[in-house]
Amino acid sequence: MSAAAGSLDTPSPAGQPELPLDTWMRAYQERFEQQASARLPSIAQEPERLHSAMRYAVLGGGKRIRPLLAYAAGEMAQADVAAVDHVALAVEYVHAYSLVHDDMPCMDNDVLRRGKPTVHVAYDEATAMLAGDALQAEAFRVLGAAPLPPQIRIELMQDLAVSAGTEGMCGGQALDLAAGGQVLTPAQLERMHRMKTGALLRASVIMGARAGGLEPAALACLERYASAVGLAFQIVDDILDVEASSAQLGKTAGKDEAQNKATYVSVLGLQEAKARAAHLREAAGAALQDTGLPPGRLGRLLQLADLIVARRN
Amino acid sequence: MSAAAGSLDTPSPAGQPELPLDTWMRAYQERFEQQASARLPSIAQEPERLHSAMRYAVLGGGKRIRPLLAYAAGEMAQADVAAVDHVALAVEYVHAYSLVHDDMPCMDNDVLRRGKPTVHVAYDEATAMLAGDALQAEAFRVLGAAPLPPQIRIELMQDLAVSAGTEGMCGGQALDLAAGGQVLTPAQLERMHRMKTGALLRASVIMGARAGGLEPAALACLERYASAVGLAFQIVDDILDVEASSAQLGKTAGKDEAQNKATYVSVLGLQEAKARAAHLREAAGAALQDTGLPPGRLGRLLQLADLIVARRN
Repeated sequence: MSAAAGSLDTPSPAGQPELPLDTWMRAYQERFEQQASARLPSIAQEPERLHSAMRYAVLGGGKRIRPLLAYAAGEMAQADVAAVDHVALAVEYVHAYSLVHDDMPCMDNDVLRRGKPTVHVAYDEATAMLAGDALQAEAFRVLGAAPLPPQIRIELMQDLAVSAGTEGMCGGQALDLAAGGQVLTPAQLERMHRMKTGALLRASVIMGARAGGLEPAALACLERYASAVGLAFQIVDDILDVEASSAQLGKTAGKDEAQNKATYVSVLGLQEAKARAAHLREAAGAALQDTGLPPGRLGRLLQLADLIVARRN
Repeated sequence: MSAAAGSLDTPSPAGQPELPLDTWMRAYQERFEQQASARLPSIAQEPERLHSAMRYAVLGGGKRIRPLLAYAAGEMAQADVAAVDHVALAVEYVHAYSLVHDDMPCMDNDVLRRGKPTVHVAYDEATAMLAGDALQAEAFRVLGAAPLPPQIRIELMQDLAVSAGTEGMCGGQALDLAAGGQVLTPAQLERMHRMKTGALLRASVIMGARAGGLEPAALACLERYASAVGLAFQIVDDILDVEASSAQLGKTAGKDEAQNKATYVSVLGLQEAKARAAHLREAAGAALQDTGLPPGRLGRLLQLADLIVARRN
C-alpha cells in the first residue's frame, strides 16, 4: 500500500482518502502513464514501427476510466497497488486495442481519436491491425506477471478473457454491427452495451478488487455496482455524442446519428436516457452500501460513479 | 492418459506407440476437431455471425501441426490428454486468428485459404477482424480453464502471450512488413521467421510438455528441438511456395516471389534452403536424444520433425 510497493518507484496515492478526487485521479493517471511507458516495448527495439504504434495507441491520452476504476476498487479491497498496476495496464491495453481496431476503415473508419489522428492514419492499416493484436497479447502477459498468487492471477486472466471475448467486448461489437440501421428494443440495446463496453468496465472493477481480499458477499455487491456503472458509462456516451462538440470529445461528435446507429438517445429519447443514467448512479451507490464496508473505503468508487454520469467528455 | 481422461469422451490415441503415424495423426486431428467444435461458441447463439466466422476460421481444415506437436510433446511428458486439449485449442486458435487477420486486404489480401474463401471474403472485413480478435481472447480463456494446477496454467499463459506478442508472432509479422521488398541477410531472415512462425510452433511443443511433468534439463533439450522444428517448418514453407501448386497447398502458390518477399529460397537459393531444413531436422533429433528419455517416448516428436521437413503441402 505504500509508495515503495510500486515496482517503478511511482508514488502511490493509495491510502490517502483526504485527497480531492481530481488530485487522486491525476496521481493515478500519472502512475498509469509511467507504468505503461516503462513496460510497453521500447521504440529503440525492433520492430520499431510496431512498438511505436502500440505506444501511440496507449500513451499520452484518454481518461483512463478503466485503470481508475481498477485502482479505486483495489483501494477498497486494500490490495497491493503494485499488483493493481498489472490489472490497470491489462484492461487499458485491451481497451486501447479495441479502439485501434474499431477506428479502422473496415469498422467505424474514424480518423480522430483523443484529438489525434487514429493509429491507421498516423501509421498504416497493417501496422494498426498488428498493434491491436499485439496489445491484446501484451494485456494477458502483463496480467500473468502480476505479483499475486497463481490462483488469483488465473481468476484475473479469466475475467479479462471473458470480458474481452464473445460474451463481452467482441460479442457486443458484433451485435452492434448486426444492428446496423435496425430498430432495437431497449432490452436489445442494453444487452449490446452491457457486452460492448459494460463488460470491460465491470471487469476493471472486479479485477481491481480481486487483487485484494474481499469477502464473496462484498464482491457480489461490487458486481452490481460495476454492472450499473458500466451501463451508465455507455448511456452518457450516447448522450454526449448528441450534446457535446468534437472539440470537447476529442473525437468526431454526432457520428451515431450520422451512421444511423441505435443509441440510448435514439431508442429512449434524451430525457429518458438521462433519467436512466441517474437511476443507475443511484443503484451503483446502493450496491456499494450493501457491501457493509466502512464508508471511508467506498468513497472513491462513489466519486467515480458520479464522475461517469456527470462527465462532459 | 486413458480415453476416459478426455473430457468430451473422445478416444485418445495416447499411450499407443504402435499406431502408425498417419493413424495417430488422424486420431488426434479428429479429437481436436471434436474438442474445438464442442467448445467454440455455438452458431445458435447471438451474435451468430461472429460465432459462425470463428468456427469457419478454426474448423474443418488445416494440418493441425501445432495441436499435433502439443499432443506429441504431451505424450512424451506423460501429460493428461484432457489438459493437453486446452493447449492444443489455445495454440490453434491463435494460429487461426493470425491467418484471418493476415489474409485481410490491408495485409496479404488473400482470397483462398485451405482451399476455401478466406474469412473476410466468406463474411466481411469487420466480422473477420472481430472473429480474429475474439479467437485470441478465447485462446487465453480455454488455456485458463485447463485442468492443471494454477502455477502451471500461469506458465502456459505466459508461454502463449510471449509467443503471440511482440517478441513472437506479431513482432515477426511487423518485421516482415518492414522488410517488404528489401534484401535481408540470412540472419535477419532467420530472426524474422523465428518470431513470425517459429515462436508459436515452439510454444506448442513446450506447452504440451509443460502440461506433464518433465525435468528442467529435459525441457531445455526440448526447447532446442522445438526451436529447430519451428524454423525448419518455415524454410519448407518457403520451398513449397516455389515448388508446389496452389491445388497442393490449398492456398495461392508463388505469392512470395510475386510479392517480392524475402524467403529462404530467395536469400539462400533452393538447394541451400533444402540443406538447411535437413540440417535442422538432424539438430532436432539430436536435441531429443539429449533429453535422456527412453526412445519409446521420443518417437512421435521425431516422426513429426520428419513430416515437417518432408511434407508436400
